[in-house]
Amino acid sequence: MSEIIKSKIRDIPDFPREGIVFKDITNVLKDADAFKHAIDLLAKHFEKQHIDYIAGIEARGFIFGSALAYKMGKGFIPIRKPGKLPHKTEKITYDLEYGKDSLEIHLDAVEPGKKVLIVDDLLATGGTIDAAVKLVKKIGGEVMGVAFVVELEFLNGRKRLPEDCNITKLITF
Amino acid sequence: MSEIIKSKIRDIPDFPREGIVFKDITNVLKDADAFKHAIDLLAKHFEKQHIDYIAGIEARGFIFGSALAYKMGKGFIPIRKPGKLPHKTEKITYDLEYGKDSLEIHLDAVEPGKKVLIVDDLLATGGTIDAAVKLVKKIGGEVMGVAFVVELEFLNGRKRLPEDCNITKLITF
Repeated sequence: MSEIIKSKIRDIPDFPREGIVFKDITNVLKDADAFKHAIDLLAKHFEKQHIDYIAGIEARGFIFGSALAYKMGKGFIPIRKPGKLPHKTEKITYDLEYGKDSLEIHLDAVEPGKKVLIVDDLLATGGTIDAAVKLVKKIGGEVMGVAFVVELEFLNGRKRLPEDCNITKLITF
Repeated sequence: MSEIIKSKIRDIPDFPREGIVFKDITNVLKDADAFKHAIDLLAKHFEKQHIDYIAGIEARGFIFGSALAYKMGKGFIPIRKPGKLPHKTEKITYDLEYGKDSLEIHLDAVEPGKKVLIVDDLLATGGTIDAAVKLVKKIGGEVMGVAFVVELEFLNGRKRLPEDCNITKLITF
């Protein structure tokens, strides 16, 4: 089912740093059928769940998250890098392999108790998605699941997430 | 028609700098009806044109562009900030009010002669979209139009674009 998607992902050696093989998903996006298929598979997976909002993590998570929100008829919530959201925000800082990074969400993005599905393109070491889950909870949202197009299983990113976190992915490397 | 969209846009004074009133579109995204309406209006506007790809400009252009690509059954091309695209890129540097900025596109993102619609959330002074148009042409694409959710008419951004550039916007301030 996901073979058309997997076939469009290419390896880019030494990006963004030497020794890392980057999974480039731009050819999934470029292929109308593969892109549609990815969104439709995600939508089908969540069609029976009660979800109020789809949140996407800047920047590639915006691409899959917003198309999924459109398909599912939900509102879209951007989770952004620091300083990008113009209104009052909640912020979280988290550890990366080298250094730290931060994410922000508008304080009024999610009303307390509303159910949120968080989308990103790829699950690697899990630091970003773990921070995004905490951020949505901080402002009172309920995280119904986290969804990825690709999981890099050998990086064990899912171990960083809470045990009760409902993880979905379309493709595994 | 676009009133539901306009009603969801809020003014944020002094963002990102003192003296600027920022048009915050996050509540358009959050409202499933307003978001769907924006995408459907854009799709309807272009339904009779031959378009091969929808390109979106990082980062808010990703949100509208990818949902539009999904709706129209087209491939999506990301136009990104420098250093983000992993494969070989074409780059353009352009003047901002203060300083310079750059955009990149994958060299193989658009095959020569393919027809591209470029999407961004907002047309302000026009520097970014003008650079994006040049970038798509540089790699051989034909720019069929540029589309925005919001145009800030008083900033005269459209004057910066080529005269034959087909400009569409849903809302004007």
